[in-house]
Amino acid sequence: MTLRLYGIPISGNCYKVELLLKQLGIPYEAVLVNSREGENRRPEYLAKNPLGQIPALELEDGTVLAESAAILVYLAENTPMYGQTQLERAEILKWLFFEQTRIARYIATTRFWLRAGQAEANASLIKQNLQLGTEALRIMDHCLAGKTFFVGERYTIADLALFTYTHVAEQGGFDLKPFPNLQAWCQRVKQTDRFFPLPGA
Amino acid sequence: MTLRLYGIPISGNCYKVELLLKQLGIPYEAVLVNSREGENRRPEYLAKNPLGQIPALELEDGTVLAESAAILVYLAENTPMYGQTQLERAEILKWLFFEQTRIARYIATTRFWLRAGQAEANASLIKQNLQLGTEALRIMDHCLAGKTFFVGERYTIADLALFTYTHVAEQGGFDLKPFPNLQAWCQRVKQTDRFFPLPGA
Repeated sequence: MTLRLYGIPISGNCYKVELLLKQLGIPYEAVLVNSREGENRRPEYLAKNPLGQIPALELEDGTVLAESAAILVYLAENTPMYGQTQLERAEILKWLFFEQTRIARYIATTRFWLRAGQAEANASLIKQNLQLGTEALRIMDHCLAGKTFFVGERYTIADLALFTYTHVAEQGGFDLKPFPNLQAWCQRVKQTDRFFPLPGA
Repeated sequence: MTLRLYGIPISGNCYKVELLLKQLGIPYEAVLVNSREGENRRPEYLAKNPLGQIPALELEDGTVLAESAAILVYLAENTPMYGQTQLERAEILKWLFFEQTRIARYIATTRFWLRAGQAEANASLIKQNLQLGTEALRIMDHCLAGKTFFVGERYTIADLALFTYTHVAEQGGFDLKPFPNLQAWCQRVKQTDRFFPLPGA
């Protein structure tokens, strides 16, 4: 048996894991769990992943990993895409937490609402998200000054995770033009080996 | 020079790092950055931590770590409070991300608003947070069934992080009575060596 990835390809959090698997050359089987249809709330899925989110990764022995960022670390451990020193690991984790608490929260959510025609219903939150998400983009742009990638001057899972929702931020109403470092870095990520684009973006 | 912890003791995210430092017996100096007064937005602090949050941990060589959960991993690496295997590390990270994206987001925020007299201004979000936070508590209670701690049957940074805002969830309007596993686990965390209570709770 091989690794099984549960999720839906157009989900950014699923894409992160799928991109890493492909870039590391790890074979896997994709199993569709259509969260847009609520399939992540079905008892048979909750039995595998009580957290009820996608993606989840089932290992050869049946163990199921959850939380996309934790899965990225699991897969990248002992490869150059994770930290080689205690300090590099702390820096990469810092960006993974920043990504989940700011980029995914403010940018991915807003992009989802805009694309799902739910902008009006969430107007006041979108206004706040645009402000807080833009602040997060400014921080990223600032931290990229004079650098090629976020940590250790090489492509790591910090870049892979941050890239996913950042490079489509304009679909959420965010403006990337004021952030040239960020734009150049997006291009560099797109040129990494075995890169493939986010489906449906 | 010793480690320097920037923050404010009543912040749960600062408390997590301070509790771990004390429980691991690591000496440190606490430097007050009063986020309630906006001191985390001052240029001299942003020069140290561009992410602009508290806590931040300054190492002996002047390197500054940020994001509380990443700091926990940094400090606990090579101790029994982090994972001893690749799988244990993935499980601990899963809970650390769950904590930041659900417990801190839904429970800590709601508790803050209630204590700051901002309940009315955030009424519709609080309603949603109570629902989503309660679902997170239910998941935790479910995953604790038959277990003493979340990962590896010993106290780790997953427990420390999850405990912080969970054990004061009632101050945010959440009901812990339906979750006996969670309540028993809170008592076990309080009995760990060198535990001290969250200031101001």
